[in-house]
Amino acid sequence: MLFNRVNGKCQLLTKKGTTMKLKLMIACICFVLGIQNYNVSAQTQVERWKIFELTLNGPKTGNPFTEVEFSADFQQAGQIISLAGFYDGEGKYKVRFMPQSEGEWTYVTKSNIRDLNGKKGKLVCTPPSPGNHGPVSVKDTFYFAYADGTPHHSFGTTCYAWVHQGDSLAELTLKTLSNGYFNKIRMCLFPKDYRYNKNEPEYYPFEGEPLTKWDYTRFNPAYFRNIEKRIGQLDALGIQADLIVFHPYDRWGFENMDSVTNERYIRYIIARFAAYKNVWWSMANEYNLIRSKTIADWQRYLQLFAENDPYNHLRGVHNSGTVFTESPLITHISIQNRETARSYEYRTKLNKPVVYDECKYEGNIERPWGSLTARELTHRFWVGMINGGYVGHGETLLTDDLEQSAVLWWSKGGTLKGESPERIKFLKEIIESAPAYLEPVKSGSRNPWNINRLSFKEEYFLEYIPYEIQPVLHYLNLPEGKNYEVEVIDTWNMTIEKLPKLYSGKNNKIPMPGKPGMAIRMVRTDNGVAPN
Amino acid sequence: MLFNRVNGKCQLLTKKGTTMKLKLMIACICFVLGIQNYNVSAQTQVERWKIFELTLNGPKTGNPFTEVEFSADFQQAGQIISLAGFYDGEGKYKVRFMPQSEGEWTYVTKSNIRDLNGKKGKLVCTPPSPGNHGPVSVKDTFYFAYADGTPHHSFGTTCYAWVHQGDSLAELTLKTLSNGYFNKIRMCLFPKDYRYNKNEPEYYPFEGEPLTKWDYTRFNPAYFRNIEKRIGQLDALGIQADLIVFHPYDRWGFENMDSVTNERYIRYIIARFAAYKNVWWSMANEYNLIRSKTIADWQRYLQLFAENDPYNHLRGVHNSGTVFTESPLITHISIQNRETARSYEYRTKLNKPVVYDECKYEGNIERPWGSLTARELTHRFWVGMINGGYVGHGETLLTDDLEQSAVLWWSKGGTLKGESPERIKFLKEIIESAPAYLEPVKSGSRNPWNINRLSFKEEYFLEYIPYEIQPVLHYLNLPEGKNYEVEVIDTWNMTIEKLPKLYSGKNNKIPMPGKPGMAIRMVRTDNGVAPN
Repeated sequence: MLFNRVNGKCQLLTKKGTTMKLKLMIACICFVLGIQNYNVSAQTQVERWKIFELTLNGPKTGNPFTEVEFSADFQQAGQIISLAGFYDGEGKYKVRFMPQSEGEWTYVTKSNIRDLNGKKGKLVCTPPSPGNHGPVSVKDTFYFAYADGTPHHSFGTTCYAWVHQGDSLAELTLKTLSNGYFNKIRMCLFPKDYRYNKNEPEYYPFEGEPLTKWDYTRFNPAYFRNIEKRIGQLDALGIQADLIVFHPYDRWGFENMDSVTNERYIRYIIARFAAYKNVWWSMANEYNLIRSKTIADWQRYLQLFAENDPYNHLRGVHNSGTVFTESPLITHISIQNRETARSYEYRTKLNKPVVYDECKYEGNIERPWGSLTARELTHRFWVGMINGGYVGHGETLLTDDLEQSAVLWWSKGGTLKGESPERIKFLKEIIESAPAYLEPVKSGSRNPWNINRLSFKEEYFLEYIPYEIQPVLHYLNLPEGKNYEVEVIDTWNMTIEKLPKLYSGKNNKIPMPGKPGMAIRMVRTDNGVAPN
Repeated sequence: MLFNRVNGKCQLLTKKGTTMKLKLMIACICFVLGIQNYNVSAQTQVERWKIFELTLNGPKTGNPFTEVEFSADFQQAGQIISLAGFYDGEGKYKVRFMPQSEGEWTYVTKSNIRDLNGKKGKLVCTPPSPGNHGPVSVKDTFYFAYADGTPHHSFGTTCYAWVHQGDSLAELTLKTLSNGYFNKIRMCLFPKDYRYNKNEPEYYPFEGEPLTKWDYTRFNPAYFRNIEKRIGQLDALGIQADLIVFHPYDRWGFENMDSVTNERYIRYIIARFAAYKNVWWSMANEYNLIRSKTIADWQRYLQLFAENDPYNHLRGVHNSGTVFTESPLITHISIQNRETARSYEYRTKLNKPVVYDECKYEGNIERPWGSLTARELTHRFWVGMINGGYVGHGETLLTDDLEQSAVLWWSKGGTLKGESPERIKFLKEIIESAPAYLEPVKSGSRNPWNINRLSFKEEYFLEYIPYEIQPVLHYLNLPEGKNYEVEVIDTWNMTIEKLPKLYSGKNNKIPMPGKPGMAIRMVRTDNGVAPN
């Protein structure tokens, strides 16, 4: 609040018309207020990877979205980061900055409007507080890591339209998400028109008459403020916001906007959202189903993000039929497909991390993609992970309300009713407690896939036995001359049983409970004694 | 018994040396005995597709297997069927004939031994008794039918070595089979050496010293009598005997016999077994694993069967890796593969019936192929059937006895302990009560396979919903302007619930119980009223 007040005061003074004397007086006032010899400022410090926001007052008249140019250069030790600002309504012009290095930064604004031009300030970027690991990027070709080096093992879910359902449902969704099942969520920026989601959104992205005549040159800042509020809340929960830029579930016309509007929209969301460290850019949901756009369009959008997002957030294009691979600017392979066992095939072929954003959902609705059993979805997570990929969850479980207005997690959020989230969290905890990064390896034993084991050197192995089989005995191959603690994991009942002896070498006979959905963890122990 | 006595008497007379007078006397005796003017005979009548067997006494000295040629020509209305005979030990030479048309047949024997040559007789082939449908052959490219036109829907099981376990276990196996779960069984002619089957067989196929020196020129008739006794017992239960000619699970040398021995063995089993109407010839189990034999060898064996089996019994070659397709003489595609959904792909590509003889087994042993859950195997049956193929069962369930000596159905027979046989029988009864033949059709609704529905014209539809999904509602497409009775089938709990109203046209909303493994049967009813 200090920020706005200080800012407002400076602007008021500036508007009077300045003389040398007046400028000196302002400088003195600013010095007293701790803003030193810059004539405009905001916060004076910000945590690394958090958001520094500068707000200036500017014109309200005309069309601020199209007529006012506003940006700022942030500078530290010779590097300059140029950031587009955006109009937030009511005469407020903002620019947001996520500093990626600590220490002092200075900035200066640029505009075709005098009041918004040449405003200078500085800030100190302080070390990140605990839990702030920075944005996620690709690590070692097939993996993800936060900027501070912490591994990010993606365990996503999907709530396409949760930000368009109003506050009370959104708060419930956040409460559900706070249980730690997932660390990524896929969500649509535009409202959604699809089965189980026919309600109007609370806000619209543009000014104009809903469903008759939008003014595509004027954004509705309230719409975007709502979204960024949710992005920030997700960030506080440690959840990546995988933002879907375009999608085909539309009755308002946002699927078929002209190319100038599309580009203006992309630049606007970059200006607003890119400073949130937890943002991922997903060009599309089911790009193949958006008939108004060509492969060249998707390539162009990827380029716009790559050129204008100074933080280089992750970029993907989610498919319906054919997987999108037609641009080197995708940072990871975003896949809709049921066969998560193909992770290894995709990563080997395309040399990028593989994210099965959609392998169908736990549910019971009238579509095969929305009526998986919890066992099947849990299985698809394990198979995808063991084959070197990442998998996403979704839930379409009808309970008492069998109507199209039912609140399904996959569309609107709310509460989770299924049995898979706990099992996914169980897997997530196993992976998070393993050494990073685990690599898929071919197992000696025959199995339905190419791969059924992850390893970290010869220190750690994790093997999965698909839930269609239920052995009472399992042959385990381990390196010779090294001792391993072996644990039998029940992926469904979420139990981990440590075997009393250590194992080494080939063809170890491991007693198994004859139940489906088992896994085995093998951890090397050097002293020849099983760890506690 | 009359047969042997009559036969013996005729031979005795013949041996004395004949004059015209004596011949006349014999003819008179024969006439009185109902054998008219033929000087040798056996039964006087046989049911169509049952076995007429002629036994003559011949030399016991030397090597009857290699030195004595013995065959017979059976003749009716200008057609001649030439049949190889075989030596059954103790001076007995036999020829077996399965007449395929009714009425009078005559025969004459041929041999390089005077006592076995030129013996004539006749028989009357009578109509088949109820339950005798004749042998199975291919029908309408993709299906099977008995010779009398009755459809044969193959529901197989596997007891590789059940005939080599002695009488008491074999009788138990037959008792189990009498429950009607299956109508085909895969079984090895040679004894088996493999996990869970390390015991010696009761008999050996050749004379000689077990494991040291076989006399491959001398068969052990007791060995083959044991097998044909079992084939006959299977026939009495209406079960096809899918006889495996060669297999790789061997410690006795039968996998690696020389080509002359292999051919002699094939001719011998044709002579002995071909007259059993329920015989199928399977050249191999897992042909790819038999290193001693080439593709050309398998082609040669198929040719031997095709040329020498006068009844043209079904012929297949069962694979481990690559499916065998390298001969036009296979009558059906015999497949080992877990993906029974590929039935449609195979049948379309190869234009033959597709039999998934092995899609892995219900069990809990230490191998992925032997530890399927009952649900998974039941699912694979439904998927294979819906996609236009046939599927085989196997069971490798360890109960209390976890040793390698455990009696597993798949290897030794005995009792069935699993949960899939009842479900398979449930499916079998559904298919058997449907109009023949059902054709796989693409469904309007999206599904994980190409095919999820069978149809008979527009009269009958059977749709399967895979057990990984659990809808509470299902959209059903039916032809317009026709009424259908709709039944919801629970493939696991084996219930069939008839819906109270009739359905017609597209997008019928069918209430479903939200459980996995459901199917839907749709039967056209013309009067607009649901049938009872």
